Amino acid sequence: MEEGRKQGDVLVASIFVNPTQFGPGEDFQAYPRDLDRDLRLAESVGVDVVFTPQGDEMYGKAYQTYIDLDALPRFLCGPSRPGHFRGVVTVVSKLFNIVRPHIAVFGEKDYQQLLIIRRMVQDLNFNIEIIGGPIVREKDGLAMSSRNAYLTPDQRPAALTLYRSLVQARKRVETGERDAARILKEARDLITAQPETDIDYLCICDPETLIDVERIDRTALMALAVKVGKTRLIDNTILPDSSSGFRSI
Amino acid sequence: MEEGRKQGDVLVASIFVNPTQFGPGEDFQAYPRDLDRDLRLAESVGVDVVFTPQGDEMYGKAYQTYIDLDALPRFLCGPSRPGHFRGVVTVVSKLFNIVRPHIAVFGEKDYQQLLIIRRMVQDLNFNIEIIGGPIVREKDGLAMSSRNAYLTPDQRPAALTLYRSLVQARKRVETGERDAARILKEARDLITAQPETDIDYLCICDPETLIDVERIDRTALMALAVKVGKTRLIDNTILPDSSSGFRSI
Repeated sequence: MEEGRKQGDVLVASIFVNPTQFGPGEDFQAYPRDLDRDLRLAESVGVDVVFTPQGDEMYGKAYQTYIDLDALPRFLCGPSRPGHFRGVVTVVSKLFNIVRPHIAVFGEKDYQQLLIIRRMVQDLNFNIEIIGGPIVREKDGLAMSSRNAYLTPDQRPAALTLYRSLVQARKRVETGERDAARILKEARDLITAQPETDIDYLCICDPETLIDVERIDRTALMALAVKVGKTRLIDNTILPDSSSGFRSI
Repeated sequence: MEEGRKQGDVLVASIFVNPTQFGPGEDFQAYPRDLDRDLRLAESVGVDVVFTPQGDEMYGKAYQTYIDLDALPRFLCGPSRPGHFRGVVTVVSKLFNIVRPHIAVFGEKDYQQLLIIRRMVQDLNFNIEIIGGPIVREKDGLAMSSRNAYLTPDQRPAALTLYRSLVQARKRVETGERDAARILKEARDLITAQPETDIDYLCICDPETLIDVERIDRTALMALAVKVGKTRLIDNTILPDSSSGFRSI
């Protein structure tokens, strides 16, 4: 929202827990919702309009139209969340048509979502500039997420291994390591050393196609999803960081 | 175009034979194209802008985004043209985002397409009014279509059975027949009496859901697709016509 405040004249925020992007058995019902707090936060950063539709306003009883992509949803979070990105791009298109923004900001924590939305905007000729908002982290490094509210204090060290494995990888690349498998092995070791961790995926891939890379000889994306207890967390970073001589994306 | 000229301040026509709405083995390559004639016709009715993109402008090499509907494409032309309506709604959405019209006109000959576009516009919150343009017929009753150029003079009587079966059905309903099966049987007999005819579908259905109806006790759609030689033709009518006491749709 701060990024949008800087970029736009009129700032609209949508607050909508979108049912079509949750699969069967996922946490749609339990997903943390705190509208009062969200409205206070929106007001505090100067949001002009907050759009908070109800589910049946967005999806009437004869609703049947969905947007999907052929390739990008097959990677990373796609396999373990079938239909998720279909739900995301569909609701985002609806929000675009309702709000008609010139600019839209999406967080980089959901890197694949951001990439998919950029692709969809280009493919469907939406005249909207998509801006990535940098990942915002807690003081200890945990990437901010509504789902962090599920974590018990005991689970915090396990949750922190996502960020720590990314920092470790970035350092290894900065000091010359180019072998993706070795870096991923070290990350896996760091994460699995903590109790209650269950790695969904852990990969180093091309930041545009999301296809795995073996050697890190140009800018790559490292991304991971880990369940800590019942809480699924994701995080990512660009390898190496912006201080390197690699082509920036 | 004449309907659009009546309705709008600035009239844009797109002329684009869209590759993604043709299936394998369909007539994308052979589809009748006559841009010079189309441009003259557009000019003669006062079109302000003609949009004639090339295929690679609409679909770049990384193109991968498609829009589809869950229910309406399963009926009528859907089963024999898998992927057709996915291609149609995708390109129509792209055209909507490029042109940003307030009003868009689609012909009623492609009734299912019109219905699907109306549904898509409502579902995805496009702020566009969709207007149906009445079927335009040749003097002998054959519904106008680019594909009529394929027909030989010998095939004309066979092609005319589409329209004649609709007229016959309308008369039967006007004089009290309510049984859909009997009307369809008579239409089938009329069509198959001509050589080179091959019925793809022939049905009487709900004009909103496209689900078959057995008794015609409210407004129904009669729709058919018939191959005449290698040329696939479609036509449709509302039963009974507007002179009846049935609820108009």
